[in-house]
Amino acid sequence: MGTAMALVARQRGHEVRLWGTWLDDPMLDPPARGELHPRLELPLGDLAIFRAPALEEALRGAELVICGVNSDGVLEVMRRARAFLPDVPILAVTKGLLPNTEGRMDRIDRCVSEVLGRDARWVHASGPAKAMEVARDVFTWMHFAGKEAAFCAAAMRGNALHVSETPDIAGAELCSALKNAYATGLGLWDGAVGAAAHNARAACFTQAIVEMERIVRAAGGLAETVYGASGVGDLHVTAAAGRNRIFGERVGKGRKASDVAREMAAEGLLTEGYAAIASAMRYVAEQKVEGVPLLRAIHAVIWEDRDAKTELLALPAAMRS
Amino acid sequence: MGTAMALVARQRGHEVRLWGTWLDDPMLDPPARGELHPRLELPLGDLAIFRAPALEEALRGAELVICGVNSDGVLEVMRRARAFLPDVPILAVTKGLLPNTEGRMDRIDRCVSEVLGRDARWVHASGPAKAMEVARDVFTWMHFAGKEAAFCAAAMRGNALHVSETPDIAGAELCSALKNAYATGLGLWDGAVGAAAHNARAACFTQAIVEMERIVRAAGGLAETVYGASGVGDLHVTAAAGRNRIFGERVGKGRKASDVAREMAAEGLLTEGYAAIASAMRYVAEQKVEGVPLLRAIHAVIWEDRDAKTELLALPAAMRS
Repeated sequence: MGTAMALVARQRGHEVRLWGTWLDDPMLDPPARGELHPRLELPLGDLAIFRAPALEEALRGAELVICGVNSDGVLEVMRRARAFLPDVPILAVTKGLLPNTEGRMDRIDRCVSEVLGRDARWVHASGPAKAMEVARDVFTWMHFAGKEAAFCAAAMRGNALHVSETPDIAGAELCSALKNAYATGLGLWDGAVGAAAHNARAACFTQAIVEMERIVRAAGGLAETVYGASGVGDLHVTAAAGRNRIFGERVGKGRKASDVAREMAAEGLLTEGYAAIASAMRYVAEQKVEGVPLLRAIHAVIWEDRDAKTELLALPAAMRS
Repeated sequence: MGTAMALVARQRGHEVRLWGTWLDDPMLDPPARGELHPRLELPLGDLAIFRAPALEEALRGAELVICGVNSDGVLEVMRRARAFLPDVPILAVTKGLLPNTEGRMDRIDRCVSEVLGRDARWVHASGPAKAMEVARDVFTWMHFAGKEAAFCAAAMRGNALHVSETPDIAGAELCSALKNAYATGLGLWDGAVGAAAHNARAACFTQAIVEMERIVRAAGGLAETVYGASGVGDLHVTAAAGRNRIFGERVGKGRKASDVAREMAAEGLLTEGYAAIASAMRYVAEQKVEGVPLLRAIHAVIWEDRDAKTELLALPAAMRS
């Protein structure tokens, strides 16, 4: 996704440097030889490529930093960058929740600010945006969230990329983290009940939005963020993703989620949703958010090896109570 | 859908009479002989069946009337029922917009009230509810809207049927009418761009919710109705419907919508969305609602034979302006 954003930035006329972490060499070796980027299946052309040791050089004089490091690596990258990171806005596609220095689950912008020892000037890029399509200029709606969202939007919007803005970074980051958890849960219906559960899937989609709104508001975020591209839009695309359906189908048919997760990890198919469900549940418990029966049911099936069909069929009663 | 609601009412312990219009004999002949209902593929058991001429008898002493007549027939049925329709709440799954006596597109509850010469005591049953699944007690979330929503909800909710309530009949009826229009439009991407347009479909899903909210608010309805089962939920299930995708795919590939509509009507596959797009556009023009570029694009493709790809690719610019 970071590379896709780099291609967009170049298309807008910016001078762009693409830096990869110590894990990204397999992605950068082929384009450095003039071959296609292995994930995006596109040539990167004259894009300047920097390897892991060249972080300082890559960041020198930057007016905007785009962060595409995933949530597992983002704090370590920020720790290494801290000494020479320019004090400019950081536009991040990184999503998830991370433990902060007190050991509680927190938003990524706050964890990064802790690492940097100052306000990270973080802008979260939310919304339904698959990298393959962003890189190919397919119509995409992203919702940038943070105090400096307007600066980032002005740098990136154009052509088929629609960018709206909000100061509500709490709402947008939580939506991005939560939609993976809920989308994986929606897939359970495919296995437990089969195709003839359109009503049930739509009811759970609606309930997911209700619960995301409760969690966002408890964090001081805005309901409207949930109703836009960050929430409704991103949940829509994530719920349709093939891997969520495969995972849900296998678990919904009555197999233990832990077995399916191991099996899918071995196939390289495990979704971000698997870990996101555990993080979301921990966050909700720490923040004492009530009224999330769907998230509880998803967690019970995926992390407590409870029977999918039993938990799903108990949902209407749980939503009434 | 009316028959599915009748089965639910019977399951709740009510004494139920199922009346069919002069067009419904083919649906009622088989169950009257003890065979399956042709659409629901279920036996109706001891459900009391009344044919078109027995309307007065069917309505006599009713405490609640459930109306499942479609929008083409609902005013004529109400005209025939007027003389002996009990003054009780009417719970209606009928959806759409109709011309009122002044010739302007209006909500069905208002058109029915004109026909009856009194307040119809209409409660609109909105939300993602396919009849096949409602009749089989698949988890379903319906949102009842109207002054007497609570009375209807108390009569119908239970088991796998979750029923929420709102006084906002304007919002719920408009959502039900509009979602067919927008869902058909979302299908266009499949033909015009193909499978690799997840971002675009999700952007349009988000934009559809934005535009439905504008239309609902202009009518005095509530935004929250759009964000719940009536809007987000129902659009989700309708957009996934096979017929919308078939229609969209054929038109999106560059064929004239009028030709595809004729062809699909002949196959018995034409969606409610086709007419709903014309009604919605007429309503929006009469109510002078601004900021609906997606509906305009869908109308241009479907009713003005404009090129689907050209209209879709112009959307990001239209949404920015």
